Amino acid sequence: MLEEIRQQPAALERTLREELPGIEELKARLAGRRPRLIVLAARGTSDNAAQFGRYLLEILTGIPVSLSAPSIFTLYQASLDLRDVLAVAISQSGESTDTNMVLERAREQGASTVGITNEPGSTLAKLAEHVFLVRAEREQSVAATKTYTGQLLALYLIAYALGAAVSLDDVRRIPEVAGAALELEPLIRARAGRYRFMERAVVVGRGLNYSNTFEFALKMMETSYIVAERFSSADFLHGPIAMVEQSFPLFLFAPGGVTWPSISEMLDRLAALKAETMVITDQGNTGAVGKATRSVVIPRLISSAETVPEDLYTPIPYIIPAQLFAACLAEEKGLDPDRPRTLSKVTRTL
Amino acid sequence: MLEEIRQQPAALERTLREELPGIEELKARLAGRRPRLIVLAARGTSDNAAQFGRYLLEILTGIPVSLSAPSIFTLYQASLDLRDVLAVAISQSGESTDTNMVLERAREQGASTVGITNEPGSTLAKLAEHVFLVRAEREQSVAATKTYTGQLLALYLIAYALGAAVSLDDVRRIPEVAGAALELEPLIRARAGRYRFMERAVVVGRGLNYSNTFEFALKMMETSYIVAERFSSADFLHGPIAMVEQSFPLFLFAPGGVTWPSISEMLDRLAALKAETMVITDQGNTGAVGKATRSVVIPRLISSAETVPEDLYTPIPYIIPAQLFAACLAEEKGLDPDRPRTLSKVTRTL
Repeated sequence: MLEEIRQQPAALERTLREELPGIEELKARLAGRRPRLIVLAARGTSDNAAQFGRYLLEILTGIPVSLSAPSIFTLYQASLDLRDVLAVAISQSGESTDTNMVLERAREQGASTVGITNEPGSTLAKLAEHVFLVRAEREQSVAATKTYTGQLLALYLIAYALGAAVSLDDVRRIPEVAGAALELEPLIRARAGRYRFMERAVVVGRGLNYSNTFEFALKMMETSYIVAERFSSADFLHGPIAMVEQSFPLFLFAPGGVTWPSISEMLDRLAALKAETMVITDQGNTGAVGKATRSVVIPRLISSAETVPEDLYTPIPYIIPAQLFAACLAEEKGLDPDRPRTLSKVTRTL
Repeated sequence: MLEEIRQQPAALERTLREELPGIEELKARLAGRRPRLIVLAARGTSDNAAQFGRYLLEILTGIPVSLSAPSIFTLYQASLDLRDVLAVAISQSGESTDTNMVLERAREQGASTVGITNEPGSTLAKLAEHVFLVRAEREQSVAATKTYTGQLLALYLIAYALGAAVSLDDVRRIPEVAGAALELEPLIRARAGRYRFMERAVVVGRGLNYSNTFEFALKMMETSYIVAERFSSADFLHGPIAMVEQSFPLFLFAPGGVTWPSISEMLDRLAALKAETMVITDQGNTGAVGKATRSVVIPRLISSAETVPEDLYTPIPYIIPAQLFAACLAEEKGLDPDRPRTLSKVTRTL
């Protein structure tokens, strides 16, 4: 898992090199038939990537997004009206029966279909009109890392193809900032020891980093068997905050930009409750450091234009310290993060 | 909280009496402008009700549904294309700033708007074109119970108004089956003692009962400070199942119908892991009883027509034993379920 986390800058670089040349063609195709709705279908880690796509695409394109509930197709066999829709299925293996079925149904109704997968020979790659291949090479660890960031990258490209204000120059800098985030490994390894006996935790994030909240929690569940809840800071105040007692461990994504006031207010409330907080933030938002018990500060980010949200390019670098933390924590606990009990790499569900 | 749980049959009855007369008018209005998309906006418990609405409306009407992420409007100030949309905001108090803003934006773009609230004088009630009043009377407990089931009831009425195969005769029977579910209180009170020292748990459900999974977990978080995760059985197999060790407590909603094979398979896997499972099921699906460590069997249900899903009318009676369990467990733990630490009844977030 650690090895694959470290491969991410190279994997992202490779994906961009291979996928950018086809992007203008997709853009031209979508320009002729702007969708009325985007449907994203995925499971597990890929569903967390879809959650990011939801925010990215709604914020930047103004097209409403629906995160598909596959059982509506597979179990209830509902016939959803998917005309004039853009359906995007995301799957590392490309063999998730249920998400493939969503794409198939969408295609039958004439929807535009896009697949994001790591496997060029997969069912998904054959099914979709346009395929983004995440060039992460074989992912051996059961806990997905490099395919998740590759999926986020593909979603930036889809946003671009839909005419969003995503700058390809900025996207090309992502592998480099991912590399900068990897420099945090020694700090995070040293930090993990403190959490040796943690059994439950809460992860909080908002907006473009809400998906990372799910992904960080999932990595802790999979590799370290921690019961890790995940919430947006707004939902957390509507009930779950009652769980927080002195020393309760919370992890928060704290980039600058529009979500910061909400996370900042949450940190103040958590400090009053004497909770133990760790924030993942960056050098552009040092105010977060003083408000948390502990912090992880990402050294470098893409400074986005004033016309786009300040946190637009934070999700990929921000998940990297979280991945490192989950892997190091598993080692601290004497577990093998590559072979979590009970799990296998490809999960087929209906 | 217990008192308000017990009031539910009467509250549901009252809501139906007052809201059914206007339903044909809404049906006629919506018939002329069938929406291309339904957007549901809510927070906290109301967002759990929205999750139910998502399944109900997609399954029965075929219109795609998007669960709104309010921060896209409130923080990122995106201008989403909401023309020809039906926007539904759900809020007990009717004063959730963020969900009201979603409705306002939708209205500005000419979308049809519906509000579901307990408060006739609220901002939401003034904002929406059509208002469903949940006639639950003042809810005093911070942990919402009777407003949740009232919101589910209103969603059945919205489905009917959209031409779905919801039978008003069946809907009229809901208060009676809610009453039958309440008969389980002595059994659940006796059962709660066993969980006195539980600190973490997982709730699993699927399809129409997926929303109940969120709601049951939220009640345990709010009233008993349990770190309670919630998953669909499909997502659970994609990673989180690694958390489960011998004696790990899980709660599963297990109605008959299309979701049962998936829940049944999950119960088999959990039995092999020696987890401790409690199912909420009913007399029509007694196969669930033998597969779980413990079971709560609802005595009576509405037998729905063959043309609709078998589990269509299960969510309201199924949440009642879960509410009773959360309230009794709080008492076992020596806590006051009506006054959870840190929380207040109305939460305003942006």
